[in-house]
Parts: sequence; structure tokens; C-alpha cells
Amino acid sequence: MPLPVLERARSELLDWRGSGMSVMEMSHRGAEFMSIIAKAERDLRDLLALPDDYRVLFLQGGALAQNAGVPLNLLAPNGVADYVDTGHWSQKSIAEARKYGEVNVAASSADRDYTYIPDEATWRLTPNASYVHVTTNETIGGVEYFWTPDTGGVPLVADASSHLLSRPFDVAKYGVIYAGAQKNIGPAGLTLVIVRDDLVGRARRECPSVLDYAVQAKAASMFNTPATFGIYLAGLTFEWLREQGGLAGIEQQNIAKAGALYAQIDRSGFYRNDVRRSDRSRMNVPFFLHDERLTAPFLDGAAARGLVQLKGHRAVGGVRASIYNAMPLAGVLALVEWMREFERDHG
Amino acid sequence: MPLPVLERARSELLDWRGSGMSVMEMSHRGAEFMSIIAKAERDLRDLLALPDDYRVLFLQGGALAQNAGVPLNLLAPNGVADYVDTGHWSQKSIAEARKYGEVNVAASSADRDYTYIPDEATWRLTPNASYVHVTTNETIGGVEYFWTPDTGGVPLVADASSHLLSRPFDVAKYGVIYAGAQKNIGPAGLTLVIVRDDLVGRARRECPSVLDYAVQAKAASMFNTPATFGIYLAGLTFEWLREQGGLAGIEQQNIAKAGALYAQIDRSGFYRNDVRRSDRSRMNVPFFLHDERLTAPFLDGAAARGLVQLKGHRAVGGVRASIYNAMPLAGVLALVEWMREFERDHG
Repeated sequence: MPLPVLERARSELLDWRGSGMSVMEMSHRGAEFMSIIAKAERDLRDLLALPDDYRVLFLQGGALAQNAGVPLNLLAPNGVADYVDTGHWSQKSIAEARKYGEVNVAASSADRDYTYIPDEATWRLTPNASYVHVTTNETIGGVEYFWTPDTGGVPLVADASSHLLSRPFDVAKYGVIYAGAQKNIGPAGLTLVIVRDDLVGRARRECPSVLDYAVQAKAASMFNTPATFGIYLAGLTFEWLREQGGLAGIEQQNIAKAGALYAQIDRSGFYRNDVRRSDRSRMNVPFFLHDERLTAPFLDGAAARGLVQLKGHRAVGGVRASIYNAMPLAGVLALVEWMREFERDHG
Repeated sequence: MPLPVLERARSELLDWRGSGMSVMEMSHRGAEFMSIIAKAERDLRDLLALPDDYRVLFLQGGALAQNAGVPLNLLAPNGVADYVDTGHWSQKSIAEARKYGEVNVAASSADRDYTYIPDEATWRLTPNASYVHVTTNETIGGVEYFWTPDTGGVPLVADASSHLLSRPFDVAKYGVIYAGAQKNIGPAGLTLVIVRDDLVGRARRECPSVLDYAVQAKAASMFNTPATFGIYLAGLTFEWLREQGGLAGIEQQNIAKAGALYAQIDRSGFYRNDVRRSDRSRMNVPFFLHDERLTAPFLDGAAARGLVQLKGHRAVGGVRASIYNAMPLAGVLALVEWMREFERDHG
């Protein structure tokens, strides 16, 4: 989370703006909290330039709950859902959807270790599919969509958990966008769902009410008590994003951060990132040292410099820098400096 | 939430115990957060004297998500679930369970406006039911179970959202206990599920993984990213409860608080609480003024004295004092004092 957001939250923790109450003590239906959630939604709509025919739902359970929520809301009883497999998180989505009906994996980059996004021309889409599901950023493989698939009118659904709000996003081309909050939105425990009106109201009977888009839309995200403190922090984050110049502004920062890091990786053969250049994530930058035995001393030296949480995912090893919105450019440059120094000493 | 918990959270918000990180910035699988959740679980087990064959799950979605989770985990495909209807929250549970199979309402207090808990001798239980569900405290009606039903071996399931941790609870007589955190446990957005081992692993295929007890038990509540900050605050609350002398200690405080309030209500005919004496909730005390037209001025005067959130639920009107653990005795005595003054001036 951005430091100014945490500082603001600290200053208001016991007394939200003279109300005498912590946000955590407010009734979620009281005037104070209603003003907080309304402002958060307004700012989010503004940031994303959200068309009027989209609902914003502040839910719980993470993107993994929506992996069930999407088919329970959208997969017709005898229908087919198309999924594009780009790595770890796609696979989770696919496994969950298979509980609820037929899933067609329309394309996969498994053939080259998930180091690219399959070209749209190769997708084998099902005519009249209930929807097409994509994972628009993969945190482990470090691949990101920088284009929007054309599904010919079939609703496009995106798990955008790990890059939503990192840059402008063409929401109007999607039917549903969902995201766990813990990357660029707010604290873990809040889940954002943005759904187009025509896709609200199709849920199956067995859909738990908390996951039913129509139930939650009708209740303005308050069918159950929402994650009030998380919504408040998301609202502060949206305000912070506006101060950064909105999504176009934060995108420039993210381009600079990722650019500096990939440039250092590509400078010599000492470090290596295997992702196709056009598909390299700006949020998650996995890389390897040319000699695997150097990974541990590299990470140890980084930690000694306060550069932490850099260990690659246990499934792939190596190093991974997650450089979400809240990571300042200075943090990335400190890593780049350490990479230079380490290469000089071990190259 | 108790004031000392909020103060502690504020002091640690930017830097948890010298880690240099906010709890909200920690990886949920990192050593720091793993120590937080482990300590929270240990303290909870200690408070409840939880037998070893119970799992503790820190989930999301509120008790209303568990209204689906319970039948999805426990209701056999051609089985019957028995529910006891004691008011608003029971009815929510019943409506959700009906999506998943046959529900038998074994008893109801609808006949007298939900002002009592039906005597066990009147319950029409189904032999070999999948489970029996009770709502052990109703926040709107203000009724509470002070005894544990005997279901003859059928798993007993309790929605204990609004009074869990307010007093000792005989967990070993229950198969599943669930509770939204926002009353006595922590902030909204965290949901506690306590489930006996033999009831883990029975989920239907269509159960969303995030609600599947076996999936979450195996993953130690981390199938999806858990509500880390909420778990941290719950842990601080458990520490605070231990300082209060545990559940036996907080029970004495709650007896004193509820006792003072009911004594004032019963003193004359000016105020009225319609709940059977033996079933009066210690957490939620709804009452009415003998002249309904006095309700608004009573509430206005209370608000002027800083006594807020006292308006009765819109479904029943009147006044309702919710006196959860975090409400100090002094707060209740201030209300009692105002009740006396108002009665003196308008009686």
C-alpha cells in the first residue's frame, strides 16, 4: 500500500474525521460509512472512466472466490466456457470452472513454459460460448496482456487481480473484471468485481447469495456486511491514484520502473528473463542468474540492503521483483544498483 | 473493537514490531504473518478450550457466506437439514439452505414474534438429519440460547456471530460454529469457522473451493489470500480478552452490563422488553417506550449525550442497545442514567 495511504489511515484510525468513531466501529449502513463507500465508488469510476452500464461490487473471498462466482453467474447449464491458459492463475480459474460445466481451453502457452500470451489468431473459441476468460497478468510467469481480445460479442471476463489500476484499462470491452484488492487496490480481504448490467441476473440457483451479482448489485454490495475497513483503504488508495495523475499518470511511473529493471536484466547475459518482450509484465518481473548457484548469495545481499520479498515463486525458483503501484521508483533503482554491483563482483 | 486494540493497531500500523512493514504489506506466507496467525489461533483455542479435533478456519464472506457453506459442506444430496427458526438471522440461514436441499423447520418462535427460544421438547427433529442448525443469538429480536440443544448425535451447527467470545461456550457439543467477526472478534470482512474433524471432507462438488472446509483446512486458511489485517486485529482482540480474564472474565462484565440495562427496563412500565426472561440476550437489548411517540425524543436526547447507534432495527422499531464486549460498563450506565432522567421528565 502507498505510504501516504497508510499514514492517513493511521491518523484517522481512532477517530474518522471528527466522527468520534473508527471506521471499524461504524455501522455499514450509517451515514458516515455510506459516504465512504459512495466516494470510493465515484473515484474508481472516474479513474477507470467506467461506463454507466457497469456495476461496481465490493465483495470478499479474493479472486479465487470469483473463480467459482464467474461460472455460477454466467455459465449456462449446457453451455461452454472458453478459457485461455497463460499460467498458474489461469489454471486455478480453469480447475474451479470445471466444477460447474464444460470448459474449453481455447489457447495455452504451456508449450513454452508460459513465457508468452498466445496470439489471438491461434485461439480456438467456441461459437456461442457463455464467456471467454483471460488472466490479464500472471504474477508467477510475469506475462501481461497489452491488448484486448476480440471475442466477437461473447462476454469477455478478466481476472485482472495483479495489474488492475496500474494503467488505463478498456473496461468497455469486458463483460466482467474481477480483482483481489491486495496488489494495487487495498488490503487483502477485499475483492472488486466490475460487471456489465446485461450479465447481472443470470446466476444459477446453486450460486451462494454472497457471490450472486444480482443479489449484491441490488444490495449495493451490502447483502452481507462488507469489508468496511478495506473499502475505506481502497478509497484512500483511489484518492492517492488521482494525485498521481490517474491511471495515465501511474502508468508512466510503472513504465519507468519496469523499463529500468528489464534494461538491467537485458544488459548482459548475467541475468535472464525468458518472457517474450511484448508480453513482459510491468508488475511482476521474474529473472534468473546465469549461474543458478549465485541466486542465494544474490538474495542474501539484497536482503542485507533492505531489498526483501525477492525470492522467485517456489514453482519456478530464481528471483522475482513485484513492483506494484506502491513501490517507488527509488526502490526499483536500488535493486538495479545491487544487480550492477553483484554482476561486477561475480560476472 | 476494544479501544486498547485500536490503539495498539495504530501504534503498529506502519511498522509491525520492528519489521519495517505494515501487517497489510506482509506476504501472507512470510514468517512474520505466519507467526501472527499462529498466535491468533493458539489464543483462540485457549480462550474456547478448543478440543484438538476441531479446525479453526479464518475465512471471508461473513456468516451469510457460511449460510451457503454449511449445506454445501454438510447437507447430503438426498438428506434433510433441520433448522430452528428464532428470527431474522435464522430465516436468512433457512432461505439460503433451501437452495441446496430439503430443510425442515424443526421449531419456530414466530407465533410470539420471536420473543423466546422454543423449548427443546417441542422440536420436531428429523431422524438422521444431516445436521441441526441454530442461531444462538438473534441481534434484532434480542434472544439468546443459554443452553445447548441435545441432537442425539446429529451434528449441531451454530451461527454464533453475535455472541461468540462473550462467554464460555461448550464447543465440544457442536459440529460447526461460525461467526462473522464484526461483533466480538475483529473487523468486518473476517469470518471464523470452527469445525470438527469428522465434518471436514464431505463437501459437494459444486461447493466453491473458498467455502470447502477440507480445502481451507488443508491450506491452513490460505487457499486464497486471507484477510490478513483482520486476522491480526482478531489476534489483538484475543490477547485483550485474555487480559479480561478470558471468557469467564468477560462474561462477568457482560452479565453486569446486561443486568443493569434490563433492571432499568423492568423497573416500571415506562420501558418494555418483550423477551422471555430466560432467553434475554446479553448482547442485544431491544426495548420500547410505553408511548411510541416518545421514542424519537428519547433517541435525540441520547444522541445529544453521545449515546449513538440506539435506533431499533427498521423491522421492529423502538430502541436497541447492542452491548458487545467492547462496550464498557460505563457506556451502559450512561444509557441507564439517561433512561432514568427521561422517565423522570416524561413519566
